[in-house]
Amino acid sequence: MEVKNYLLGYQDMYIYQDTDYFNFSLDSVLLPNFVTLNKNTKKILDIGCGNAPIPLILSTKTNADIVGIEIQTEIYNLAQKSVLENGLQNKITILNEDVMEYAKHQESDQFDLITCNPPFFKIDEGSNLNHNMCKTIARHEVALTLDNVFKIAKKLLKNNGLIGMVHRPDRLIEIIESMKKNNIEPKKIRLVYPKTAMNASMLLIEGSKNGKPGLKIMPPLYAHEQDGGYSKEVLSFFEKSD
Amino acid sequence: MEVKNYLLGYQDMYIYQDTDYFNFSLDSVLLPNFVTLNKNTKKILDIGCGNAPIPLILSTKTNADIVGIEIQTEIYNLAQKSVLENGLQNKITILNEDVMEYAKHQESDQFDLITCNPPFFKIDEGSNLNHNMCKTIARHEVALTLDNVFKIAKKLLKNNGLIGMVHRPDRLIEIIESMKKNNIEPKKIRLVYPKTAMNASMLLIEGSKNGKPGLKIMPPLYAHEQDGGYSKEVLSFFEKSD
Repeated sequence: MEVKNYLLGYQDMYIYQDTDYFNFSLDSVLLPNFVTLNKNTKKILDIGCGNAPIPLILSTKTNADIVGIEIQTEIYNLAQKSVLENGLQNKITILNEDVMEYAKHQESDQFDLITCNPPFFKIDEGSNLNHNMCKTIARHEVALTLDNVFKIAKKLLKNNGLIGMVHRPDRLIEIIESMKKNNIEPKKIRLVYPKTAMNASMLLIEGSKNGKPGLKIMPPLYAHEQDGGYSKEVLSFFEKSD
Repeated sequence: MEVKNYLLGYQDMYIYQDTDYFNFSLDSVLLPNFVTLNKNTKKILDIGCGNAPIPLILSTKTNADIVGIEIQTEIYNLAQKSVLENGLQNKITILNEDVMEYAKHQESDQFDLITCNPPFFKIDEGSNLNHNMCKTIARHEVALTLDNVFKIAKKLLKNNGLIGMVHRPDRLIEIIESMKKNNIEPKKIRLVYPKTAMNASMLLIEGSKNGKPGLKIMPPLYAHEQDGGYSKEVLSFFEKSD
């Protein structure tokens, strides 16, 4: 069922979702609040944008042109509706395309920042692939592997351009290997913990194309208070702009 | 000046230091409290043991035989004195040797666990090498590089044996690359933060020789309270045994 939800309380921003197959998750709110934005950030690409939570949130933080790419037509339609609903068609362009094809026919060295909340799960014999194809593509690496993402970033990022990704901590080693293989130097990491005294549940990482070595590990981000509600920091992402 | 200090309050454990050239640091207390010890841990090697804080603390937590290696004779002498002072000569053997030479003439696949608090700083043109040679060797990679440590671990660890290291977070990428190059799979990481809301200042990492991928990132460890005193968790490392 298609529904229209609040995405950000602080400026009447809405997002279209479909309760049957696609809702955005906290990951997509954390990433645009983690990546480095500055006055030189002119052009951003969000790979596998889903219903566009990352482009929508980024649009409140930067004047850059934002391109979101989504392979699945049903989800692309939701993203498109959300962009129009919020009157952001001059800042955000959503494309219904396979990002691998897109990268092939694009010129290299054009983006200042790439964001990606990729499928989290590998496909292997044990994978319990979702019968709902939309969920499967969004959650499993059928259409897009880690290596693909960084290979695309290597081509499309300007020199010293940045790529920010949210992923599971157990994939950190592969992420770093794949970044290095594609000349992307990890520059900052932030770990997200469900609560204090628990293992990290999410990883935010940003790397720079042809960047110099030098990694910072930022303060932990706690998603929830001990009572289960969102932490103050997470609430601040929904409630007010930086 | 040589002094005898308390290492652990909870069981009258002393350590010899020399205020002119070698004191143990918090790093050496965190590492033995981080590594995985169990009933199968029979033989441990501490590479670059300094005045032996890691072997001494480990001896309160395991019945394993512990070998510590220290290249510098003055510091080796302090380590030796500390072992005797605490009556641990049956559990801890300290060797005054270059660990690279040691590894060459040793049989492979003999240790269950290797610990290492290595020199933290690379040597490059900008290095302000310490005029005190003891401090230089302990702090700069003159005698031992990261790659050397993991190469030694690859040889001396049993299959699925563990190596635990404490290092600066800005070296994480190199550490992971060097581990992978030497067939050591990173399995757990813990970040140490000076206080809340600050970047990580220290990194604890453990890997398994020929281990399967699967990394856990443990809860953050705060070294200090906001008032500047040690945190409860750090104090527990000094005050009581696990």
